Amino acid sequence: MASQALYPECSSSQSTDGNFSAQSLTFKQRHIGPDSHYVKKMLGVLEVKTLDDLIDKVIPPNIRLNRFLQLPTALSEYAALGNLKNIAAQNQVFRSFIGMGYYQCIIPAVIQRNILENPGWYTAYTPYQPEIAQGRLEALLNFQTMIIDLTGLEIANASLLDEGTAAAEAMNMSYGATKHKTHNFFVSQDCHPQTIDVLQTRARPLGINIIIGNHITFDFSQPIFGAVLQYPASDGSIYKYHVFIEQAHAEGALVTVAADPLSLTLLEPPGEFGADIAVGSTQRFGSPMGYGGPHAGYFATKEKYKRQVPGRVVGVSKDTHGNIAYRLSLQTREQHIRREKATSNICTAQVLLAVIASMYAVYHGAAGLKVIALEIHQHTVTLAEGLKQLGYNITNKYFFDTLRVDLGPRSVKDILAACKLKKINLRLFSDSSVGISLDETTTIKDIEDLLGIFAGNSHTPSRKLLPPQLPLEISRTSNYLTHPVFNSYHSETELLRYLHKLELKDLSLTTSMIPLGSCTMKLNATSEMMPVTWPEFSNIHPFAPQSQTKGYQVIFQQLENWLAEITGLAGVSLQPNAGSQGEYAGLLVIRKYNESRREGHRNICLIPTSAHGTNPASAVMCGMKVVPVACDNGGNIDIDDLKAKAEKHSRELAALMVTYPSTHGVFEVAIQEICGVIHDHGGQVYMDGANMNAQVGLCRPGDIGADVCHLNLHKTFCIPHGGGGPGMGPIGVAIHLKPFLPGHSIVEIGDELSMGTVSSAPWGSSSILLISWMYIVMMGADGLTDATKVAILNANYIAKRLESYYPVLYKGTNGLVAHECILDLRSFKKSAGVEIDDVAKRLMDFGFHAPTVSWPVAGTIMVEPTESESLPELERFCEAMITIRKEISEIESGKVDVEDNLLKNAPHTATNLLTAKWNHPYSREQAAYPLPWVKNNKFWPAVGRVNAAFGDRNFICSCIPMETYSQE
Amino acid sequence: MASQALYPECSSSQSTDGNFSAQSLTFKQRHIGPDSHYVKKMLGVLEVKTLDDLIDKVIPPNIRLNRFLQLPTALSEYAALGNLKNIAAQNQVFRSFIGMGYYQCIIPAVIQRNILENPGWYTAYTPYQPEIAQGRLEALLNFQTMIIDLTGLEIANASLLDEGTAAAEAMNMSYGATKHKTHNFFVSQDCHPQTIDVLQTRARPLGINIIIGNHITFDFSQPIFGAVLQYPASDGSIYKYHVFIEQAHAEGALVTVAADPLSLTLLEPPGEFGADIAVGSTQRFGSPMGYGGPHAGYFATKEKYKRQVPGRVVGVSKDTHGNIAYRLSLQTREQHIRREKATSNICTAQVLLAVIASMYAVYHGAAGLKVIALEIHQHTVTLAEGLKQLGYNITNKYFFDTLRVDLGPRSVKDILAACKLKKINLRLFSDSSVGISLDETTTIKDIEDLLGIFAGNSHTPSRKLLPPQLPLEISRTSNYLTHPVFNSYHSETELLRYLHKLELKDLSLTTSMIPLGSCTMKLNATSEMMPVTWPEFSNIHPFAPQSQTKGYQVIFQQLENWLAEITGLAGVSLQPNAGSQGEYAGLLVIRKYNESRREGHRNICLIPTSAHGTNPASAVMCGMKVVPVACDNGGNIDIDDLKAKAEKHSRELAALMVTYPSTHGVFEVAIQEICGVIHDHGGQVYMDGANMNAQVGLCRPGDIGADVCHLNLHKTFCIPHGGGGPGMGPIGVAIHLKPFLPGHSIVEIGDELSMGTVSSAPWGSSSILLISWMYIVMMGADGLTDATKVAILNANYIAKRLESYYPVLYKGTNGLVAHECILDLRSFKKSAGVEIDDVAKRLMDFGFHAPTVSWPVAGTIMVEPTESESLPELERFCEAMITIRKEISEIESGKVDVEDNLLKNAPHTATNLLTAKWNHPYSREQAAYPLPWVKNNKFWPAVGRVNAAFGDRNFICSCIPMETYSQE
Repeated sequence: MASQALYPECSSSQSTDGNFSAQSLTFKQRHIGPDSHYVKKMLGVLEVKTLDDLIDKVIPPNIRLNRFLQLPTALSEYAALGNLKNIAAQNQVFRSFIGMGYYQCIIPAVIQRNILENPGWYTAYTPYQPEIAQGRLEALLNFQTMIIDLTGLEIANASLLDEGTAAAEAMNMSYGATKHKTHNFFVSQDCHPQTIDVLQTRARPLGINIIIGNHITFDFSQPIFGAVLQYPASDGSIYKYHVFIEQAHAEGALVTVAADPLSLTLLEPPGEFGADIAVGSTQRFGSPMGYGGPHAGYFATKEKYKRQVPGRVVGVSKDTHGNIAYRLSLQTREQHIRREKATSNICTAQVLLAVIASMYAVYHGAAGLKVIALEIHQHTVTLAEGLKQLGYNITNKYFFDTLRVDLGPRSVKDILAACKLKKINLRLFSDSSVGISLDETTTIKDIEDLLGIFAGNSHTPSRKLLPPQLPLEISRTSNYLTHPVFNSYHSETELLRYLHKLELKDLSLTTSMIPLGSCTMKLNATSEMMPVTWPEFSNIHPFAPQSQTKGYQVIFQQLENWLAEITGLAGVSLQPNAGSQGEYAGLLVIRKYNESRREGHRNICLIPTSAHGTNPASAVMCGMKVVPVACDNGGNIDIDDLKAKAEKHSRELAALMVTYPSTHGVFEVAIQEICGVIHDHGGQVYMDGANMNAQVGLCRPGDIGADVCHLNLHKTFCIPHGGGGPGMGPIGVAIHLKPFLPGHSIVEIGDELSMGTVSSAPWGSSSILLISWMYIVMMGADGLTDATKVAILNANYIAKRLESYYPVLYKGTNGLVAHECILDLRSFKKSAGVEIDDVAKRLMDFGFHAPTVSWPVAGTIMVEPTESESLPELERFCEAMITIRKEISEIESGKVDVEDNLLKNAPHTATNLLTAKWNHPYSREQAAYPLPWVKNNKFWPAVGRVNAAFGDRNFICSCIPMETYSQE
Repeated sequence: MASQALYPECSSSQSTDGNFSAQSLTFKQRHIGPDSHYVKKMLGVLEVKTLDDLIDKVIPPNIRLNRFLQLPTALSEYAALGNLKNIAAQNQVFRSFIGMGYYQCIIPAVIQRNILENPGWYTAYTPYQPEIAQGRLEALLNFQTMIIDLTGLEIANASLLDEGTAAAEAMNMSYGATKHKTHNFFVSQDCHPQTIDVLQTRARPLGINIIIGNHITFDFSQPIFGAVLQYPASDGSIYKYHVFIEQAHAEGALVTVAADPLSLTLLEPPGEFGADIAVGSTQRFGSPMGYGGPHAGYFATKEKYKRQVPGRVVGVSKDTHGNIAYRLSLQTREQHIRREKATSNICTAQVLLAVIASMYAVYHGAAGLKVIALEIHQHTVTLAEGLKQLGYNITNKYFFDTLRVDLGPRSVKDILAACKLKKINLRLFSDSSVGISLDETTTIKDIEDLLGIFAGNSHTPSRKLLPPQLPLEISRTSNYLTHPVFNSYHSETELLRYLHKLELKDLSLTTSMIPLGSCTMKLNATSEMMPVTWPEFSNIHPFAPQSQTKGYQVIFQQLENWLAEITGLAGVSLQPNAGSQGEYAGLLVIRKYNESRREGHRNICLIPTSAHGTNPASAVMCGMKVVPVACDNGGNIDIDDLKAKAEKHSRELAALMVTYPSTHGVFEVAIQEICGVIHDHGGQVYMDGANMNAQVGLCRPGDIGADVCHLNLHKTFCIPHGGGGPGMGPIGVAIHLKPFLPGHSIVEIGDELSMGTVSSAPWGSSSILLISWMYIVMMGADGLTDATKVAILNANYIAKRLESYYPVLYKGTNGLVAHECILDLRSFKKSAGVEIDDVAKRLMDFGFHAPTVSWPVAGTIMVEPTESESLPELERFCEAMITIRKEISEIESGKVDVEDNLLKNAPHTATNLLTAKWNHPYSREQAAYPLPWVKNNKFWPAVGRVNAAFGDRNFICSCIPMETYSQE
């Protein structure tokens, strides 16, 4: 009953010589919910003898992997952390003065421990169900308000992936807003080079022509639809962009300013000098550099573009009781509804990091941020004067925190050698000048060290901080962060309670199962999370020399090899920092491959109608035309239609995008045939890895016929959802596609044939790759395989338990599902007036997050329990669903009113249930405690059902005045 | 409004040359709740111009410190952590095989992050208010069940300070239970030496005669009242104690077995071979060694001794609605009620560590613990066989995890040199044999390294794990940990949710103010807490050579110096690991001093009637006679009575114990005169440091006249309360008392004249000293002084705001209080039938923890807001109190029923409020949301008012069968 080897047939907690490790309580027993006792019980219900029998029935034999994955033997948590500590020691943490959008910063300890290291925050899902996500939504509204205030613009979204992709989204939005009237886009040569890279990669397939130039000399003789300027410029110079912007506006172009948000506490903000869009990174607002990420990019623009804003925007609305309630607004679910007409495939934010950045501002307030910025600036002035005294020329006229230093006769080699001795990294420009960016952690001692480097043998006296040197003409005069939320939580006690209060409004995995179809909300183990905040990993600049990042290189290489083995593919790129980025990168690889073999005309992408909406959006972003392929009644791809379409577009066929097992939760038997058809017509097969959790260890995309596959590490490989990000979407490719994998202009990776750069950082959000590394190391081949088997078992158990209450929409040939199941609720609309949302909201009263609603089929819910949920939790969920079914029956039978019932009024809040008058035909107790065990662990939704339409009609995306609350 | 220098007059965030540090947002602004804006507002209400004016009126001028404390300049959090990291690097973490009750262990990551590093657990107070402490109480009940099961005894308490003090308590209890019929107590020579030390120190003043001997040869020719045996013995040998115990019982003596709880998973438990008491440490159940602590000691005995059990016992009772509810049972508050008749001064448990230990067992379950124990044992067998092969003699016949190795011709020096190379610590016995204790972290590689050390030049082949060698006659056959709680949470997901569920039942500082008079529940800052789990500090054995602990020595020396400066005393001992231990140690110092000057007959301890109950209890433990001194109507010591008593007992006068400011929250003007009286009669002044938070930086015990003073680091110096422990109670002493400070037999500290040893570890719970070190480093002299000033301001603000609703019982000469105030509620019993508890429980409905109730004056509450609470929180508390006063008025006026009202029925639970029928004369809303802001942050008590009498009548102190719950 207790901790025994989970499955005798593949237990490897004892190695073959009987010499078991000191920690023979294996991690897989912690990760996988049901123990052998429960597994047996569940198999009994499914009338299957063994777990392997079940798997044999679920997965078509022709695609089964008939060996264990070749991965290192599983280590205990203790041993894995010990090993990783040794690898970490191979990283050298230098003081970073590189800048370029990444800065050392101080994450306030209270924020680090209570958000970044707190499962109550990091295990939450994207806030699609606002009634149980008011905490995060409030924090994100604070984030948006902060961005609006700092940039001086009117609206902001709830974050993007990084500065480079935010700039690319700005280009994209500008292109659309100006109705493609010209294809030219101006990019200032003073932008961060990685931003330019990402823009160029993004522009190419869309036919956008990027003009890189000097904003001062650019004469607008070529028409442009938009421009990007960096503020302060990448080398630290502060330019006045007014004139350029006026000219651009005169030409009908939109101007984007990529701005450092901290500098905006001192400098005139972009919105005030005319920018249409501002983008950037909030990394230095308390997110560790982490060798590249994750950090929250930001995006702000004018009110008039509110329908074009990429990503997610949190808005203010009301609940059914008239209380203020937050929600994701303008939720057209663009990719799903517009599909191939979508202009962006962005479906992830960096919620956890945006929350951190917002709390950094909440904690410091306007005055605190200004003090930080001013000190950095004064340190920079002090450094500049010191360098001048030493005879160096500073090329920036005005600067905030960054200097470009002309080395003059001094050799670069000398300087670098002196830097190395002091464990200092500078930025090296190609003309032998160097860049020095200071930050919040800089001290007078650092400045003395820096001057020592430049002094050579000269004497460097000790320094005093000099006064600021920012003339009024570039200085900020307007107020910001005046809302009470930025002025109420400046003591640690107050902030701690605010964080705690928000946390408790949100349902996370710390409360109960979040059974989201295809989102794989499995355990995010503490041992996986711990290394993320180890300083050896978190304090490294993404462009630090590789000689200092040997530990990270070990991690990358091992992880790439393991993911290659797991997918059966030849090469892996870790750069894409979201699933959508993986799709995009993968398709670009295919595009580049086709170009390389002079098949550049291939631009047709076949996509089954059942596909996730990002698929067509990504295809369009890669310049492809989407041709939908029909599905049959069983939810499988209609092979005849596929063949016909492939035949028809044979010459232009670029790719098929296919999810496996299908988005309907079934292992399609014909998958190899399908891949064959595509290959026969010269196309490539792109496999969407969203459902990899049903494959790992049992079958492999490469073996099945995929040429490219992306992996959602935040689904299958334990990176937590963070309440809506971060994610990671590495891609695996077959051998012929390897040369085309992403590259990077600053850090040497990728082949000459590389398709370009999709993320600002070479390995995306490097620090969270440690999570997946730890997971694989601790699970080993048999652990991973067992996890997949139990994921399938759990899904089939739920399907079996519920099928007599709710029809299971799609099943495989043996009547079994894969790792998720779709429950059909469509009939209840007619029989009881019950909508899918009514069921979703009623589940909250039981303390559950709803499964995926109305996707991939409207009117259904898709349930994915994952392997981490144990039988008692599955049972509680099933009991809740069965109880809801009974509640529906009572409406159907006429016993209960169609409008005033437990489902329509769900979720029920405590405040509403405690009103003096109770006019509903059911009791308060029935509403709050529909089953006895709910009493023991009641989770109270913070607000009643949120009115979506009201919020969209009355669009507000920043903090509302406090008076509004008191009027309630 | 935002982050400005808090008080212009003493701001030192800028150093004198205007060269401020990079992080000029000082920590004191984070620690102290009200900013300058609020301070001004509060001063206005008090009609005082400046903060210093207020302080001048509160503190008698003759005792004021008229300079800043001489402490290092305050550092920012970032800089302080950086400095501490450098100090940490001076510690060398060797692999420890020393044993002696301290073992390396693996704290499961999920427990480390979600309990030990989680303010939701560590900032809670002692669970005196059970309705808002059911989470901890359940965890502690699990702890007790675990101890009962493992030891095979009938009842257990909720933990003690460490193994040594637990053994001393056992001696004490045996002494009482046998009615002092003899003074002899047998202590096996095979006990851990530090345990013997603590026993001897404890025995001396009580007149107990300790006989150290061999349990095999002891012939009972001397009568004994009890005995302590170690199991397994300190050198690892496992003895069968049946015969000894039978003989002891025949002589009417009680036998205590000090047992390693992990060994009890394999060995016959003490309860089964006749032990009356079992004690020990649960350190290896997931608590880091931390160079000595904190860890949870345990104490188990037979049911018949339930009224004599020292410390706290959690019991099962019912609430008013009939639900099962936990509470501290047998709560006679022994020290308060029995005072000088109390047999123990223990008033602290190690709750946080006991919770960790219990969760370690909950997570592993019986089978998991057994696997761990078995592996350790098999590793030991493997090592033993290897050593034998190398020609060494193992002196233990049977062993679990520890071997004593006879070095034979091999020189100790050689062995130690080889150990050093491999960074290994062994135990060195005086006869040149060595001890080796293995633990959960041991691997085959460790064994090979150990054998390599002993092999010298011989070849050491690689090893395979050998089978166990525990004969049936000493093996355990009975079951343990069979309750479902130890068999339900073995996956990380399940445990995480269990921890989270329990956490949410408890009100901690993450929710709201805990305004406990004299318990100083201030901010426990994250930056203070972080270093506690740094491996450089947490993984060091308390008896590691001092050459490896240089970092810790730096911390100790600095902290001792700073505390000496703060108290105005000459020497400090960090050994006492609780406030009560500090009192005890301080009085023993006085005793020893008197003996040294041939005044050993001095044994009278004057104690004001207002004193905390531990004072008389401690005095009695030190062999003193307590003579109470009266207080006058103002709550001050009655000087005439004091003089009379001092005069009367002049020859025997040992000490006065006095709390300052008084337990009534007032700075007594006559304090210097009082001290003078005592000194004139040859007595020493012992100052109880419970109220140091009103003194720091403003006046000093040493200057006032104290000869000894203990400091509750868990009150004044930011160690969190941990839900009821750990604490630390160092003592400061005047120069003439320095030679008598605590010593230690294993680690060389203390003078020859030392009064002995009060804790098992030389510096008590060393790892949490880092918290106080960080606090002082980050606050600096002006920060600490400001904190004291604001603590006094906050208390006076509350007194002022509430005095027209509730009389403030005691005030100083200017009508002001110190850092806390007593509100008199006694009249309401008559006017409205309202008891003090009714108010305390009603506060829970507002989301507040009650202040201290009925202490120091029955029928009153004592409120101490501390400096960390900001004005809005103070206001919320005052509003709650005012609202309650109105509710009382309505009873007084007859508007509301005397029995059925908001106070009598408080606290109100959600389940009870949602019952269909509502028969009370007030509304559900009034009950749950008495003020509008309560809605926004409702904390729900888990149970209704707990029936104390029922629980004591039906004493149950272990987990109850699950069926009991389902009967509800």
